[in-house]
Formats: sequence, structure tokens, C-alpha cells
Amino acid sequence: MNNPIRRVAIAGGTHGNELVGVHLVKHWKSAPKEIQRASFSTELHLTNPAANKALRRYIDQDLNRQFYVEDLNNTGLMGCEQQRAKVLNELLGPKEDPRIDFVIDMHTTTANMGTSLIFNLNDPFVVGMAFYIKQKMPNATLFFNPRTRLEDNFLMSVGRLSGLLIEVGPIAQGLLNYEVYSQTQSAVYHGLDYIEARNTGQYLDLPSQLSGYKFTEKVPLPVDEDGEITAMIHPNLQDKDYCEIAPGDPLFITLAGKTIYYQGESSVYGAFINEAAYYDQNIGLSFMEKIDIVLNDK
Amino acid sequence: MNNPIRRVAIAGGTHGNELVGVHLVKHWKSAPKEIQRASFSTELHLTNPAANKALRRYIDQDLNRQFYVEDLNNTGLMGCEQQRAKVLNELLGPKEDPRIDFVIDMHTTTANMGTSLIFNLNDPFVVGMAFYIKQKMPNATLFFNPRTRLEDNFLMSVGRLSGLLIEVGPIAQGLLNYEVYSQTQSAVYHGLDYIEARNTGQYLDLPSQLSGYKFTEKVPLPVDEDGEITAMIHPNLQDKDYCEIAPGDPLFITLAGKTIYYQGESSVYGAFINEAAYYDQNIGLSFMEKIDIVLNDK
Repeated sequence: MNNPIRRVAIAGGTHGNELVGVHLVKHWKSAPKEIQRASFSTELHLTNPAANKALRRYIDQDLNRQFYVEDLNNTGLMGCEQQRAKVLNELLGPKEDPRIDFVIDMHTTTANMGTSLIFNLNDPFVVGMAFYIKQKMPNATLFFNPRTRLEDNFLMSVGRLSGLLIEVGPIAQGLLNYEVYSQTQSAVYHGLDYIEARNTGQYLDLPSQLSGYKFTEKVPLPVDEDGEITAMIHPNLQDKDYCEIAPGDPLFITLAGKTIYYQGESSVYGAFINEAAYYDQNIGLSFMEKIDIVLNDK
Repeated sequence: MNNPIRRVAIAGGTHGNELVGVHLVKHWKSAPKEIQRASFSTELHLTNPAANKALRRYIDQDLNRQFYVEDLNNTGLMGCEQQRAKVLNELLGPKEDPRIDFVIDMHTTTANMGTSLIFNLNDPFVVGMAFYIKQKMPNATLFFNPRTRLEDNFLMSVGRLSGLLIEVGPIAQGLLNYEVYSQTQSAVYHGLDYIEARNTGQYLDLPSQLSGYKFTEKVPLPVDEDGEITAMIHPNLQDKDYCEIAPGDPLFITLAGKTIYYQGESSVYGAFINEAAYYDQNIGLSFMEKIDIVLNDK
């Protein structure tokens, strides 16, 4: 690797009511050796303390959608998270020439997504980290959300090589859960070990290809003319993240008990099924495409 | 029964982010026949619309703790829910001589409590309803939280015969879930059928005694000198609501992974284990006593 990783940022509480990341940051502040590796420095960041104090996902906007370069440079954006993004860009970035090489951002979901390794940048270093963690945690799922770094609005896009979003569920908001906590912790340790191995030129016996899922679209919940939700996730689909949804399969069930079926022409796969945080936009789930993810550089 | 039930209130959204009750109220407003019974009238109430709009449990205080007679009569209490309680007392009460005979209040929990039938008043009409619903829904659990009506601060204490709190979980806050929705719906229908049967003098073959759980105390999460949580529910206890906790069993696990054991001298039973809503007071679970509940009047 031409440019070794020198500085890693671990972020928790980007969504203020996702407490697992918040408490992992607090824990590591009192036990810093657990995240220290010899070849690079690791920083801990509580990224949205105002929302965390209020035990809310956000105060004004979703912080993890505020990192477009254009928005970071627009001083007219006055929302709490719009301001916070600018401060984080000063702390970690600036995005156009970042101080931080790689960001690990810890999230939780109310959906039954297990340990999902979300990466947006199709870069061999990033994909290699996801492959490495999947090798150590075989139940983890690779979740590819294709973006170029400068056209990405996630917090992790501030890192020079972008980063990895570790999304673990199911867990309610505002809650700690040991299994989710320890899964997140393990994924972070493996991620740091991977960076250490790459920095020091260790041979990593990674596969050249793994199966994963690519985000394609968000699927709205049915609403009435007033924008009120009229249906919920069908019980056959609840908790079935990363399972196949074939044409004619149930998607939703109305408040009156009527089933609404998937009308597409080909199978898709679900993720973020019944994620509480997406109710503010009446989103019921994401459709994903099952893909082979290729690691081009070993 | 000397005093038949003439007016029943069904309440949803007493906690604004418990969406199942909110959407059941909305559904029944468009399908009122489902909750109509011949011998009494049924009213639907969205009890905390401000908190529901904000998708929060409450704006200023927990609404379901604002119904002490003294507080209802104290015009100096200025919080959003303190004011709302006074309005609900006008709508349903007044508590000292209520217009409404019985309140059914629909709640959800992040704890794995299934369908819990929470009643505070040890009155044969109230206990009989819980027994009747349990007969129809054998997996439901009887949860007795002993209070006299005038010394109770729950919303349902505004009813002449108090009421029943239907608590269904696990479900994250801010979410709908069909299983939780339909369990709640069924419990309400059985409750209304019971009132109809009692009003019309039908013979109900109810048992004279059933096993249930009596609330004894709330158990705090371990905190440090700054009041910050230092431990979470132990994985062996997570989701084990209504299971026995024997002396020496694990209760909590610290952020650093150290187990904290139950030090009591006799067994207890857990409920509201890892309820997100109680993190504002750093409460980890409730201890319950397993009891035989006696139906004195058949």
C-alpha cells in the first residue's frame, strides 16, 4: 500500500439514540489500550452529543446525511447537525484534504440485520477490511452502498479513504444490549487489526470474491391522502432482512388487515426492514440486490 | 353487578412513541363497529398528541404518572403532560366522580413481556377482566401493581373502576409491528366482550385463582459518580421477563465485561427487563413476586 493509514477515527452516537456506540466510546476512553495498534493512532469521537443528551436520533437533521462538500462549505445552513457537521469536518477533515485517513462509524438498527458492514467506496482497502471482518465474523453481512467519496453525504466520507459503517441490530433506540455491544466491539477490533496488518505488510489470505448486497432503493410505507401511514410491514417479512422477496410475496399489511404484495418483476432482498428511524420519512424497508463483491487488490 | 358499565374509554399514545396504540385508535375511528358493544358506549382517545407528533414518549413528564388527585388539582404544575392530564381529567373524569367507568390503556415495551395485562386495582370486576382475557389468550401474563384508585397516578385510575393497561412487547419505540398490533387488538376485543358479558349477566366460567406477578421494586442500572451508566443487562437475563432470578444469578455486565450478580436472599422474577423508556431514570428492570391472584367475586 502506497499510503499507510496514520490516523483512524472511531465515531459513536452519530445518531444520538444509538447508545451502543456512545457507550463503546466511553468505555474505550477509560481503556484506550484496547483500540491502540502500533502503526497508527486511533481517536474517539462522540459525534452528536446534543442529540445524545436529548436521547434523540437528531435535533434538526440526520447528521449522517450532512457531509456533502457543498453543504459543508455552505455557511447558510443553520440546523444543529448542519453546524455540527462543519465542526466535525474541521476536526476530522477537511473533506477535500483530510487529516483522518479512515473513519469507523458505529450504528445500530431496529431491523434484524445482525452485524452489517456498510461501505460506500469501492476501494480495495475498504473492501478488504469488510472481507477481513467477514472472515473473522462469518455471520456478518456485506452491505455495499455505492458512492464516490466526494459525492457521499455520510460522516465516514470525511476520511481520506472513507470508512466503514458498522450497523448492528435488532435493538431498540435508547437502549444498550450486550450482544449488540460485543458484536460491534469485535467488528471494530478486527477492523483495527486489518489496518495494522496492511500497514505492516502482513500477508492476508482474503478471498477474491464474496457474496453481499447492494442498496438499490428505499420503499415507502403506504400512506393516505394526509400522509398518514395506513399499513405496516407484513409479519412474513418482519425480521427477514437479507432474505429473498419474490414477485407476489407479501410486503405490507394494512391497519385493517389487508395484505399488500410485492409487484416487481424480479426478486429483490430486504434490509432495514421496519427501521424506526425511517418512519419520519414513512420508509418501510430498503430493497437490495444480491451481488458478488470483488476484491481487486490483494 | 350493581353498577353496569356505561362508558368505556380506549386510550392510545399515552406515551407518544408507542405507535401501536396510536394506530389502533386511528384504525377504530375508521372502523368503529369493531369496538361497539350493545350495552355500553366506547370512546377513543389519542391521549398525548403533542408527544406523538414529536415521536417522543413525553414532552416534559411521563403522562402516565400525572394522575394523582393532588396533582390534578394543582394548577401550579405547568409541564406539557401536567396540563394534558388536567384536560384528560375533564374529558374522562373528574377522578373523584368520573364520567368514564373503565379505561383500557394501550402500551408497548421494548422488553420481552409478550402480552401483559397490568391492573392496579384489586377489584373483582378488574381482576375478572384480566382472567377473562388470559382465558382467551393463554400466553398473556397477569401483572398486578397494587394501588388504590385514588392513590394511583396512572391514566386509567381516572375511570370509576380504574381500568386495564395492555402492555405488549418486545417492540422498539417509534415503530409498528403486526404481531404486537394484533395481540393488542385481540386483548382489547376480549376486554370489551367481558364488559358486555358482565353487563348482560352472562355466566362466565372463570377460574377462582390464577398465577401472576406482583410488582415489588425497580432495580437501578449501575452508575458511576457522574451518574453515567457503567453496566447493561447481562445477556443471560435479556429477554427473560417473568423468569426466575435466583440468588447468585447474573444481573448486569459492565462495559468492560465484568458480571454483576443478584445478591438477594430469595428468588425474584424480572419484568420490564431493558425497557428503553426507563433509561431516563437509569432503571434496568423491575423485580416481581410470583403470586396466586384470587378472583373473589364470580
